[in-house]
Amino acid sequence: MIFICDKSKLQDSISIVQKAITGRSTMPILEGVYINATSNTLTLIGSDKDVSIETKLEADIIEKGSIVVDAKIFGEIIRKLPNDEVKIETLDNSVIQITCQRSVFNLIYMSPDDFPSLPNINENMIFSVPQNQLKNMIKGTSFAIAQDEIRPILQGILFEVKDNYLNLVALDGYRLALRRELIDSQNTINAVIPGKTLNEVAKILEDSEDLVNITFTTNHILFNLGQTKIISRLLEGEFIQYNSILPQEYKMCVTVKKQPLQNSIERASLMAKEGNSNLIKLDIQDDSMVITSNSQLGKVREEISVNMQGEGIQIAFNSKYLLDVLKNMEEDEVILELTSSVSPCVIKNKINENSKYLVVPVRLVK
Amino acid sequence: MIFICDKSKLQDSISIVQKAITGRSTMPILEGVYINATSNTLTLIGSDKDVSIETKLEADIIEKGSIVVDAKIFGEIIRKLPNDEVKIETLDNSVIQITCQRSVFNLIYMSPDDFPSLPNINENMIFSVPQNQLKNMIKGTSFAIAQDEIRPILQGILFEVKDNYLNLVALDGYRLALRRELIDSQNTINAVIPGKTLNEVAKILEDSEDLVNITFTTNHILFNLGQTKIISRLLEGEFIQYNSILPQEYKMCVTVKKQPLQNSIERASLMAKEGNSNLIKLDIQDDSMVITSNSQLGKVREEISVNMQGEGIQIAFNSKYLLDVLKNMEEDEVILELTSSVSPCVIKNKINENSKYLVVPVRLVK
Repeated sequence: MIFICDKSKLQDSISIVQKAITGRSTMPILEGVYINATSNTLTLIGSDKDVSIETKLEADIIEKGSIVVDAKIFGEIIRKLPNDEVKIETLDNSVIQITCQRSVFNLIYMSPDDFPSLPNINENMIFSVPQNQLKNMIKGTSFAIAQDEIRPILQGILFEVKDNYLNLVALDGYRLALRRELIDSQNTINAVIPGKTLNEVAKILEDSEDLVNITFTTNHILFNLGQTKIISRLLEGEFIQYNSILPQEYKMCVTVKKQPLQNSIERASLMAKEGNSNLIKLDIQDDSMVITSNSQLGKVREEISVNMQGEGIQIAFNSKYLLDVLKNMEEDEVILELTSSVSPCVIKNKINENSKYLVVPVRLVK
Repeated sequence: MIFICDKSKLQDSISIVQKAITGRSTMPILEGVYINATSNTLTLIGSDKDVSIETKLEADIIEKGSIVVDAKIFGEIIRKLPNDEVKIETLDNSVIQITCQRSVFNLIYMSPDDFPSLPNINENMIFSVPQNQLKNMIKGTSFAIAQDEIRPILQGILFEVKDNYLNLVALDGYRLALRRELIDSQNTINAVIPGKTLNEVAKILEDSEDLVNITFTTNHILFNLGQTKIISRLLEGEFIQYNSILPQEYKMCVTVKKQPLQNSIERASLMAKEGNSNLIKLDIQDDSMVITSNSQLGKVREEISVNMQGEGIQIAFNSKYLLDVLKNMEEDEVILELTSSVSPCVIKNKINENSKYLVVPVRLVK
């Protein structure tokens, strides 16, 4: 194998496939990046047991071939090389030589035969969405994934295709996050994708309107971004019927400016850290929300103006759960729908209906 | 105590005195910031056993008084408040009330009587230097401080005033760093200041030509920046006679562009990480420097052009020590003075004589 390519393009490609190389696998070969050189194209693949990422780049292929090379050291070498053409060739004794200007590295490589092949996926594209949209949907839900392993299915995000909508849902028993966008698809699909994988996918997705094509098989999802393909296994099992959790009615609703609310909760939570309870109390009356918290160190009282419909209410929350939601909402004004001090609170944008969040209150001992 | 002051000025002042509040002390009072309000001036003090920082700011003092309040939570509260006037007043029961717009915090405070008083220093200013110059001198030497506690004196930086020069010296048995600047002082002083303290001092010093006045007593050094004073204890004991370590002669010298040399050593060190030895070899012949390194993973060869005087040499180093030096040098070209493969290498700027570094080579087993 001999090829010449641009240093910075190679660096970008390595950084993409490295997102699949997590070191969580016990197979040493999976700490490597697979490189295949053929017909003016380099193909790089990184894999762990959950996800594989393949990306292609242009290169001047002098001799075809393929190798697997340790991703960490190879990535560091390429990153530190001068911005110029890089020549890579296999020598004898399982060694590649990397040459760039007056730098010459010899690095051992592994046999590509041991590298697991990608799942064979028939690309019957189900639908496509703009990359920036999918990126926002993942970011806007992934914080609500369960952190513990009690119910493994909750460590994933539900991709639900239904009635021309793509719905992403994550929940952990304390809060639920739902993001949805209109798509052009008549299919009905329920698939749960590991949250860790999706966080890596979000890093690769660009802040552009360029489309990502999405294909499902029984066991996998394929994100096709053009030069780059990401294949993730699906989580086994049924996701929770989230629609039965979302309240259909409410007794009062509060419209409030998002940033002042977030700032006040952040300040109140400074006093709520004692014992990690993060407990803050909301007292909503007469178009005013009073947020209080106290600990051994002292206490805090925050007041903000709101617009309310319905009777006043007193309710307590873990401030972290409210902050996670508010940080991930995009509009200036949000609506809180409440029923009682022990019923979940629904939080959504004032205008756009693409986001719906639910937070369970903390029941106070009277 | 009642006062009103600007939020962001108070925040800046807290952040200055917090640099002395390290949590390394076992006295709970030293986790607090001392606040004294008197005649339109707030004085804040933070202390640990090695260093005290005092800073003053303007405030509208309605009632004089002083308190000590937990620096961490107080700093976080002030930082998160809106950018506006903050009112702070003592209530009953050892509580202060912090009010800003519609935020009200009640926070317990400690008695100021238990806060240790600052060492009494007669400010016979010895000399003054521009803040940016002292900052550079500290940064340019502090990396060479000993990390272990075998010889405590080497955890400090020597401040030597001699022959109208201020010399800062740090060394750890493997390398030595010397920075010097002309000052206007006829005194002769030898004082060793804890390195950790000086790193905090460097963070407070501004990138400006504003002067910092420096005073020494038997046990302390005082940095007076105007609104802010930093008092550090000195380390006890004699510093090493560093002049006897610096070679007076050399057999060959190499002039080389700093950045290409640094880049090549950084790349070579990628292959030198195995076993943490960081070993790289330099072969300097015929106006060319070849840098090589190898490990189980492979090997590297870097070549750069140099200008050499004297006979060629082969010498090995811990790449980390060379990189620490090069990263802290400011000129485009540097000079390496060498004598043999087992003698220390001196590194200095090509033009400005304000920096002199020494690195001990690694003796190779033949």
